[in-house]
Amino acid sequence: MAYHAPVSDIAFTMRHVAGFDRAVEDGLYGDLSVDLAETILEEAGRFAADVIAPLNREGDKYGVTLVDGIITTAPGWKEAYTAWTEAGWNALPGPVDFGGQGLPTLLNSACVEMWNSASMAFGIGPILTMGAIEALVAHGTDDLRARYLEKLVSGTWTATMNLTEPQAGSDLAAIRSRAEPVGDGTYRIRGQKIFITYGEHDLTDNIVHLVLARLPDAPAGTRGISLFLVPKFLPDGARNDLRCAGIEHKLGIHGSPTCTMVFGDHEGAIGWLLGEENRGLNCMFTMMNNARLAVGLQGVAIAERAYQQALAYAKERRQGRAPGAAGDGTSPIVDYPDVQRNLLTMKALTAASRAICYMTAAAIDRAHREPGEASRRRAQERASLLTPVAKAFSTDVGVEVASIGVQVHGGMGYVEETGAAQHLRDARIAPIYEGTNGIQAIDLVMRKLPLSGGDTVRAQIAAMRTTVTRLMKEGTPLFGNTAPRLRDAVESLDRATGHLLKLVLANVPTEALAGATPYLRLFALAQGGAALADAALAANRMMGEGDSDPAQGSRIALCRFFAENIAVGARGLEDQILSGAGFVQDAAVALAR
Amino acid sequence: MAYHAPVSDIAFTMRHVAGFDRAVEDGLYGDLSVDLAETILEEAGRFAADVIAPLNREGDKYGVTLVDGIITTAPGWKEAYTAWTEAGWNALPGPVDFGGQGLPTLLNSACVEMWNSASMAFGIGPILTMGAIEALVAHGTDDLRARYLEKLVSGTWTATMNLTEPQAGSDLAAIRSRAEPVGDGTYRIRGQKIFITYGEHDLTDNIVHLVLARLPDAPAGTRGISLFLVPKFLPDGARNDLRCAGIEHKLGIHGSPTCTMVFGDHEGAIGWLLGEENRGLNCMFTMMNNARLAVGLQGVAIAERAYQQALAYAKERRQGRAPGAAGDGTSPIVDYPDVQRNLLTMKALTAASRAICYMTAAAIDRAHREPGEASRRRAQERASLLTPVAKAFSTDVGVEVASIGVQVHGGMGYVEETGAAQHLRDARIAPIYEGTNGIQAIDLVMRKLPLSGGDTVRAQIAAMRTTVTRLMKEGTPLFGNTAPRLRDAVESLDRATGHLLKLVLANVPTEALAGATPYLRLFALAQGGAALADAALAANRMMGEGDSDPAQGSRIALCRFFAENIAVGARGLEDQILSGAGFVQDAAVALAR
Repeated sequence: MAYHAPVSDIAFTMRHVAGFDRAVEDGLYGDLSVDLAETILEEAGRFAADVIAPLNREGDKYGVTLVDGIITTAPGWKEAYTAWTEAGWNALPGPVDFGGQGLPTLLNSACVEMWNSASMAFGIGPILTMGAIEALVAHGTDDLRARYLEKLVSGTWTATMNLTEPQAGSDLAAIRSRAEPVGDGTYRIRGQKIFITYGEHDLTDNIVHLVLARLPDAPAGTRGISLFLVPKFLPDGARNDLRCAGIEHKLGIHGSPTCTMVFGDHEGAIGWLLGEENRGLNCMFTMMNNARLAVGLQGVAIAERAYQQALAYAKERRQGRAPGAAGDGTSPIVDYPDVQRNLLTMKALTAASRAICYMTAAAIDRAHREPGEASRRRAQERASLLTPVAKAFSTDVGVEVASIGVQVHGGMGYVEETGAAQHLRDARIAPIYEGTNGIQAIDLVMRKLPLSGGDTVRAQIAAMRTTVTRLMKEGTPLFGNTAPRLRDAVESLDRATGHLLKLVLANVPTEALAGATPYLRLFALAQGGAALADAALAANRMMGEGDSDPAQGSRIALCRFFAENIAVGARGLEDQILSGAGFVQDAAVALAR
Repeated sequence: MAYHAPVSDIAFTMRHVAGFDRAVEDGLYGDLSVDLAETILEEAGRFAADVIAPLNREGDKYGVTLVDGIITTAPGWKEAYTAWTEAGWNALPGPVDFGGQGLPTLLNSACVEMWNSASMAFGIGPILTMGAIEALVAHGTDDLRARYLEKLVSGTWTATMNLTEPQAGSDLAAIRSRAEPVGDGTYRIRGQKIFITYGEHDLTDNIVHLVLARLPDAPAGTRGISLFLVPKFLPDGARNDLRCAGIEHKLGIHGSPTCTMVFGDHEGAIGWLLGEENRGLNCMFTMMNNARLAVGLQGVAIAERAYQQALAYAKERRQGRAPGAAGDGTSPIVDYPDVQRNLLTMKALTAASRAICYMTAAAIDRAHREPGEASRRRAQERASLLTPVAKAFSTDVGVEVASIGVQVHGGMGYVEETGAAQHLRDARIAPIYEGTNGIQAIDLVMRKLPLSGGDTVRAQIAAMRTTVTRLMKEGTPLFGNTAPRLRDAVESLDRATGHLLKLVLANVPTEALAGATPYLRLFALAQGGAALADAALAANRMMGEGDSDPAQGSRIALCRFFAENIAVGARGLEDQILSGAGFVQDAAVALAR
């Protein structure tokens, strides 16, 4: 199935929901204009569709092979990766001083979506490299930056994150890998890491591993973990003492190697400290917002791809006669109300998750680029608040939409050749990696709601209310029940927020933790609905100004569908948070066997 | 991962929700006593756990091979199937006159659940054989019954349903396979069928295909389709003119061969008419309730298996320290509120879907066994009403629960060795085959709500209200908000039912069709909640009578969790049906691209 980059929807969301134009006007994006950004999006969309998308099925079929520690990726992957870096796509958000183009996270996010729509297994590699670049920029010594940044920015080399160990998954405090100072500024690293994405591959000549390990005298727990840069090949060209000891046979993203990495079989792998000793987790957290957002974008990406495939199938596949069909022939199944509901659900969830991700990206940009410190701090908190929602909601949407996509295909959806099933298999990793969605929900409730004593989340809810107020004032019947439905969702969110904030600030965590996942969903329904309403209001204004593009009417219809058919779940979620969650711990007696 | 048959939960649901004891008291089940039924369940559970469950992973890994038209199943499958039939399990519900044990559908349903928990790919084969037995009993000539029933009842031979053709999936009117009368009572069948489960295999010496085809003079559409019995080997031992031309590479149930069948390469396959000419679809419909219920049971089954696996993992896997944990060590993740919420959701959905399926089975039994014709007819309508809910809700639950199961495993869930991912892959077919869940929802709204002018559904809702009233009168605080939450769900269902009935009776189908899927879910939330409440009320009564089994308290806790955390979605579904659905057709403009 071909992929068509939805550039106009992407650009519209960037501009009219995430505030791209405002950021340009505010002078935050330097020379970048709206026109130039749209040109870049067009180019990226072409590359994604023409070069990467055709590899997706191959990657799934061939997977990767591991022979004598050497991994070979699927046919065509190395060439595509090389072409992609040579076209400058890896360097798009990178620092200008090291060959990057210094373009905004918002613009790069739109590109990340397209790379991952084309192929999630391809797209996850650069996400890790971009995260490592950030860590190096923020925490690397001048020497390390000089030695590694340029190659990483260009994509000549890739990078990995080595966090997980068999006993240390969500709980990084349990990390056991060790690092011993040699005395010359280097460290000897020993340990085993699992689930290391692109830990070994044949796309580039070198791989730069970022590895969490403990110094000999480190305190126990998370405050005794340091971050090290450990290259596959050392600066003198010698092979470092590390190897890929195995790869996982996974449900999906077969094209992406998931490696068990062994450091220090012999004398110990040589590494360099990144940031301060015992502050490794803080170094990780500085790049966490971006990496989590990027995984959220994978959810958007796979949802978009699954939607496109299901829609194309529904337009082609004919069965029976739809109600009210004209003429004698059979109807494409897209004419059936139940199929329409499925496809609209797919599209609306995809659009809402895209909007939330792009808003998060815009907040990250402002956190870095606002001239005033107070504005930067506010934007940073907004980004922190939205990041877990962007990650968890979007990746849940990826799975839900891909699953509906299988359903729309009927029996053909269950047959691997069709490709619909691959999207579901691929999508299923995103709610797990880069912090499970349960961890995201807990992060949102326990750490993000209390930001600035709750002012950050209250400001976000106030912005949603502003959108609802604008909707209320709209005279056109096109919006139907959009305004009251979204108002109800925002008010549910407001009440649930107050309830959880009280519990968290009073340090009564259990009930708040039990309500965290429904709360994140509720937040996303209200925020997603408000974001689609922002888009719809802009579309309505343009129509009033004579814009005859039918896409504008579609935006209003999609917003209304979301409000009337999806956001209506808000009340039930509020009930779960306000009353159901308090019983979860006691109900756990039912888990005895 | 081992499977433990949840015999006590199964027996409790049969007895205290589905009315097994009442049916025994009413004399509907002959000599069968509660004790004997429980003994049979124990035996079935042991067989499923000890003999079938160990094959499940092998079946997934090896799949089946097709060489020169001959299919070989995975190692151990043939032996297990033979042992299973020799133990008499295939004959359990079969007619006594042909070697069957004539046991109730309700008891067999519990067994079907267990076979499919052990292995869905194994369990689907007998479901088809049992369906064919029903068709033969109802529509076969004495000759055909004499020739085939005994072997099918014992499981010495298996049977298939040959419905689907490339252009005829949900729309059977488009069937093109042809049947020509020879003049000697046989017919020559020609055509191609796809997605034929166990269309070819090495488990038995013969396979009996039931094939839908058109006679030469048949009218177009569904009223021109006839049903034929077409054996792989003819009574004289000659090979019939039919073959397996290919097998599908599927997302899951790899152990089950899904075949393309070609009839009539040469002189035409020899077949015999089942039922009347051009009435083939009616013949199919007589066995539809049972087959759809059986697929619903597959949903229950895979949900149960996924839940058991996730629970075992959550008790073993340790990460960090849970809130309020005593002592110094790490906590099993089952002690974390978010994980508890996940596991309780899995268990509650599984229990609710089991209850609905067993209630459906009990209604089918009464439709066949009630002495009075009016009672039989009422039971038949109740079975007809509940069947699409049992099929669609339970299979959706299968997918949802299996997906949560992957999530509970974290990264390990995405690795195929763990087995959690297989459950998700296997589960995904059940919402598709035997009538997609969209078709089930449409069947529920368009054909089942109007039964007896709406009296059938109104009686069902009245029974739910009776349960709510009993809950209201319960003094114990154990139930928390169970009663008001379930009352709200039942009242939402009542309003939505009235709304849809009005549309359907007024022949305004489009809006009703758009609301069908949310309506089916709403029905299941109210019915599932009421069923769990029936179980909880029985448990509470037993506790009051001195029963100290902790399982009784668990049943109340699970019911309360369902009401407070799952049934609360009812209001949002009602909103979708009453207001959102009316806009779906207009919103379809958003699907243009």
